[in-house]
Amino acid sequence: MRNPLSDRIVEIQPSGIRKFFDIVNEMPDAISLGVGEPDFDTPWHIREEGIYSLEKGRTYYTSNAGLMDLREAIVEYTERTLGIRYHAKDEVLVTVGGSEAIDIALRAMLNPGDEVIMPEPCYVSYLPCIKLANGVPVSVELEEKYEFRLQKEQLLNAITDKTKVLILSYPNNPTGAIMTKEDLKAIAEVVVEKDLFVISDEIYAALTYGMEHTSIASFPGMKERTIVINGFSKAFAMTGWRLGYAMGPKVILEQMTKIHQFCIMAAPTTSQYAAISALRNGDNDVEEMRKSYNLRRNYLMNAMKRMKLQCFEPYGAFYIFPCIKEFGMTSEEFATKLLEQEKVAVVPGSAFGACGEGFIRISYAYSIEELKRALERVEHFITTLREENKKK
Amino acid sequence: MRNPLSDRIVEIQPSGIRKFFDIVNEMPDAISLGVGEPDFDTPWHIREEGIYSLEKGRTYYTSNAGLMDLREAIVEYTERTLGIRYHAKDEVLVTVGGSEAIDIALRAMLNPGDEVIMPEPCYVSYLPCIKLANGVPVSVELEEKYEFRLQKEQLLNAITDKTKVLILSYPNNPTGAIMTKEDLKAIAEVVVEKDLFVISDEIYAALTYGMEHTSIASFPGMKERTIVINGFSKAFAMTGWRLGYAMGPKVILEQMTKIHQFCIMAAPTTSQYAAISALRNGDNDVEEMRKSYNLRRNYLMNAMKRMKLQCFEPYGAFYIFPCIKEFGMTSEEFATKLLEQEKVAVVPGSAFGACGEGFIRISYAYSIEELKRALERVEHFITTLREENKKK
Repeated sequence: MRNPLSDRIVEIQPSGIRKFFDIVNEMPDAISLGVGEPDFDTPWHIREEGIYSLEKGRTYYTSNAGLMDLREAIVEYTERTLGIRYHAKDEVLVTVGGSEAIDIALRAMLNPGDEVIMPEPCYVSYLPCIKLANGVPVSVELEEKYEFRLQKEQLLNAITDKTKVLILSYPNNPTGAIMTKEDLKAIAEVVVEKDLFVISDEIYAALTYGMEHTSIASFPGMKERTIVINGFSKAFAMTGWRLGYAMGPKVILEQMTKIHQFCIMAAPTTSQYAAISALRNGDNDVEEMRKSYNLRRNYLMNAMKRMKLQCFEPYGAFYIFPCIKEFGMTSEEFATKLLEQEKVAVVPGSAFGACGEGFIRISYAYSIEELKRALERVEHFITTLREENKKK
Repeated sequence: MRNPLSDRIVEIQPSGIRKFFDIVNEMPDAISLGVGEPDFDTPWHIREEGIYSLEKGRTYYTSNAGLMDLREAIVEYTERTLGIRYHAKDEVLVTVGGSEAIDIALRAMLNPGDEVIMPEPCYVSYLPCIKLANGVPVSVELEEKYEFRLQKEQLLNAITDKTKVLILSYPNNPTGAIMTKEDLKAIAEVVVEKDLFVISDEIYAALTYGMEHTSIASFPGMKERTIVINGFSKAFAMTGWRLGYAMGPKVILEQMTKIHQFCIMAAPTTSQYAAISALRNGDNDVEEMRKSYNLRRNYLMNAMKRMKLQCFEPYGAFYIFPCIKEFGMTSEEFATKLLEQEKVAVVPGSAFGACGEGFIRISYAYSIEELKRALERVEHFITTLREENKKK
């Protein structure tokens, strides 16, 4: 029998996160600080709306682009939070999470060989999605000394005459970095000047600490060349509902909707009804969760200081990204040993791109009690490592 | 500003069904016989399971491939209904409807230029999904004289040295055709001999009338070269839940799971819990709905006879596909006039491929009362047409 597989898909590596959690799942007493998912159940009023829609028998397809009520709620929420006004009718598409939105944005925009600039470390899906859409991923290595913010010069150096799209992802997974208004302004100017497009993954937009999130789409000339991706998973603790959305210029959204229609049909109906309630009545829930995350973030940053583990202070998402270079091993070795010896799971930074090497991602989507238990083990681990290294 | 779009996506035509329903939606007193969606609410015990899972706070991601409980239920159901045994662990993937499964099966298998044989008329997504996956669609024109079943000779004539995949779709949308065991045996022999792979879209498998559905994967040598697609939308009236699945050899499913993980993450959690109940306790519901569809099918076939509209008898899905060639207009003209003059919406056969020209698709996912009201209008329409044609 001949080879049934596409050459390209075989060449794409499986996620480094996944590989790691296959081991964790086999280890019953392990504590995980690895998962990129809120530890909160979806707020009750949102679930209640989902339940109500099921009781009412709303079990049919919605329109391909999503319920008009939901699209209108998305438009209002976006205007309220980002100060940008989209048209519900033809500039908003409801998708199966942010994941689908990224995939179809790339499929709608790329011709074979088009280059996509992808600042790393970044979310594990960008690279495979670019390749699957016939694009060429071009990595830019973000640096800790700039707190993992994309620098104008870095972007300029990466641009060639084949560059078409920049994927921007702030607040960032895995680093927790955010970009300030000034940072974004400089990037936006390059994008306009070089006639690029931006896919701006703002899935963590609601989770910033001590600083407001700004969207690059809000700068002059940027709305017409930016696809903003957002969703319900992170802000509203709705991962299992699989609901996100894309907003952008009609000419691109129209094509994304066509792909969505053929390849997915529509997002889940129950989730769409529930999401209306999330946007219209969920501000307090988000605020409560954000406060919890911030307490945990402070707790972790203090623990890092106490342990003398070098870690820049992240102001977004729910991750810290400490440096483990002092121990003279790769981040995968570090994470593997930590798991084997102390049964604590973190994600090696190298899972998010080569320049994540020397770092580990610790999620704080866990209760303070869990964080405390885990950090005791981490502390024991690095103390032992330091003593061993001294002896050498 | 330069063109933001991929050349390929622009070239793919929007669905002919969709175009039509944009008009229908603007016409409040129109009766639609056009939609490919059960008119039943999802059975209560299935919705109840979804509600229970929301009450319990099961609002988190499942594993990428889907809940193991659900995959086991799928395996049992498939063995019970098709007589084929898959492994829940690595031969089953839970997807966002059958749509996603088709898309990622093609993305996992095709290299640029690989030909995919696509018997037409067929579901509107196959052609765009093939093109988006860098494949070359090769149409085979099914014929009414063979009741729209794929003939061995037709398949042989379409095969070149670039052929890799055959998309088989029975019970068929739009024709309602099914393939018998003998029909499939002949096709399976060609597939094995020519070393092809099959994507077998069996989403209507549970909806056959007076004949059992057979899967091509059940023939010797076929399980290892077939991806069987099924789902909950049609059999269990669960369209809005967006839940389907793919089953096939581990080597392909592994790659499909990788694409699913990066581009979709996981299917909706509430839907997955509900679907377990559908498979384990839903047989009576399916049987009830099947009986209703069959009554309507008989009602429509009698009406066709009375009106002397030529129509082969379909034994599957919930469509009839009558011939309208006698009226000397295209199927789009016919459907447009019928909508304008009598406010009844049907889908032009040409929406499902060039060889659907001369036919219209009538869905019987409507109550007998609705069908009756609509058919009175259809009868008036064709009587008038015949009289006008006589005068000419």
